Amino acid sequence: MSDPQTGSVPGRIMAAEMAEQPAVLQRILDEGAPKIREIAAGIAARSPRFVLLTARGTSDNAALYAKYLIEILLGRPAGLTSMSTTTAYGAKPDLTDVLVITVSQSGGSPDLVASTKAAREAGAITLAVTNNPDSPLAEVSEFHIDVLAGPEKALPATKTYTAELLALYLLVEGLRGGDGSAAKELPGLAAGVLARHAEVRALAERYRFAQRLVITSRGYGYPTAREAALKLMETTYIPATPFSGADLLHGPLAMVDNVSPVIAVVPDGRGGEALQPVLDRLRGRGADLVVIGQQAQVDAASAGFALPAGVPEEVQPILEILPLQQLAYEVTIARGQDPDAPRALAKVTETH
Amino acid sequence: MSDPQTGSVPGRIMAAEMAEQPAVLQRILDEGAPKIREIAAGIAARSPRFVLLTARGTSDNAALYAKYLIEILLGRPAGLTSMSTTTAYGAKPDLTDVLVITVSQSGGSPDLVASTKAAREAGAITLAVTNNPDSPLAEVSEFHIDVLAGPEKALPATKTYTAELLALYLLVEGLRGGDGSAAKELPGLAAGVLARHAEVRALAERYRFAQRLVITSRGYGYPTAREAALKLMETTYIPATPFSGADLLHGPLAMVDNVSPVIAVVPDGRGGEALQPVLDRLRGRGADLVVIGQQAQVDAASAGFALPAGVPEEVQPILEILPLQQLAYEVTIARGQDPDAPRALAKVTETH
Repeated sequence: MSDPQTGSVPGRIMAAEMAEQPAVLQRILDEGAPKIREIAAGIAARSPRFVLLTARGTSDNAALYAKYLIEILLGRPAGLTSMSTTTAYGAKPDLTDVLVITVSQSGGSPDLVASTKAAREAGAITLAVTNNPDSPLAEVSEFHIDVLAGPEKALPATKTYTAELLALYLLVEGLRGGDGSAAKELPGLAAGVLARHAEVRALAERYRFAQRLVITSRGYGYPTAREAALKLMETTYIPATPFSGADLLHGPLAMVDNVSPVIAVVPDGRGGEALQPVLDRLRGRGADLVVIGQQAQVDAASAGFALPAGVPEEVQPILEILPLQQLAYEVTIARGQDPDAPRALAKVTETH
Repeated sequence: MSDPQTGSVPGRIMAAEMAEQPAVLQRILDEGAPKIREIAAGIAARSPRFVLLTARGTSDNAALYAKYLIEILLGRPAGLTSMSTTTAYGAKPDLTDVLVITVSQSGGSPDLVASTKAAREAGAITLAVTNNPDSPLAEVSEFHIDVLAGPEKALPATKTYTAELLALYLLVEGLRGGDGSAAKELPGLAAGVLARHAEVRALAERYRFAQRLVITSRGYGYPTAREAALKLMETTYIPATPFSGADLLHGPLAMVDNVSPVIAVVPDGRGGEALQPVLDRLRGRGADLVVIGQQAQVDAASAGFALPAGVPEEVQPILEILPLQQLAYEVTIARGQDPDAPRALAKVTETH
């Protein structure tokens, strides 16, 4: 199925980068973890009281995951920054005792660099989490974590997303004096999930002609819902709207009917329990419900992809996104488009 | 055009509530402002260092507006809470010196009440902003602001949204010792905007058969983009995806082409300036671009609605949303649906 004009196979680069994920996760555990632990200790010694996370696009979904970790595991209030308050309006809040974490694959977007620089000048402890240790963002930040994903060439980010998630998990574990052991099995589990690509290809049939998608989750799974929506939108161009389960009931449920398929990411744990009433409501409305979650949840839905059992809830997002990346890829191929090169996108986005 | 079965006119309640907005704004300025000023003084005396905002649905968009005000005008870091970290995961962050503002039309949603109660026990200064002074939320909060919008009966919230915006603006003005004078002309200006309903009806023709919509803005206008998307989704059922202009360039731009119409909310000020490169990019791609903003911006787009000139940027959102509420109403009517009663919605959403 190579392109007759260029000789390239559509989606070849994205497929290769998705497949690298188990190796990247292993590399972070083996080579990255000691450095992350050291940085965490340096930051913990400064006793930050509040955490602000700054990012865009895929990295913003990784930042949202970190927000859950920070609030739940670390017990610190956290917020996502509205970057334009600094870059467009010149806001200068006092950031003493505030840890500002900026997450960026390239570390090159000028607005991220400017806002991190401004945060440091305002007294914040600044930490960059990037895939490029030589980036301008790493340079302006006091601390830097390299997510060690290797060069990412496909426009839809995949391996840098899971790498950011794992690095941020290890960071929060370091900040609270945990040992990060919940992550140990992830590389092997990720390889097992990715090997079931054929199951995802069958699921993709369902969305080949879809006009719209709703994606929902709650708790730790909500960043996955957002990242899945972004991935589907930027590759398939299907409008895929992510909602936390609770927000879905506050209005957008009106949009869901038997022509609006729903994908639910159901965490195995408290997030999944909190999502149950939403799932019941969706089933009651006859929604086409595809579940990414435990086997029993998949069995109660129209279809789905069963995730491995027994994984601690806080690291499940690193596995949940894998079949959804593959889904974006497969639906894109099925629609005759090239996942490697969505129209209109550039890899380093120059927002100011 | 009354319904032959019930005798009721579709959208009658929503239309009446939209029309009440100038009077509600005037009531807040006349009767609500002194009380808000007093509450602000009480909170300012406690010198909060961080602000957390908690809300869902339409009120979450009002909370996001307040986040911009707090960061830009007050110079305090602020974040939106991920409520499930408290209600599902039992997170107990130390909230000393933190002001927690919970915004809710009904003040009745159990998860908002539970998370506000937990915040107060964790040492936060708690403030409820609701349309119901006798609500459980008002009761568990240390401070309470009544937005004085009167009973809201249509399922799509309209007058409570603009009432929440104005109350939050006056609160932040009070916290920083401002006089709130930028809001003085809003009731008259709002009446002028609402009187141009026929212009919006003409715009609605454009979206009668739309399969999807993208709505973008930046800075102070971004909460408007989100609220417009929510309003359109819950009434017309068209998937309407809101993006900050910067995030649109980081991926979802691939979704925009000449069959995906774009609505841009262009603030008159720094937010609008920061949005210019995005507008240029959209025009370069031949997007159907409808602008809510100043006349010159409308003239450079495919169509639009011109807002009054000379209004301070921080209160423009209170006017920007008005033609977008009317647009949701008109598109819904054009599609043969009833804006008053979207399928599947209840006015007080019982999320836990």
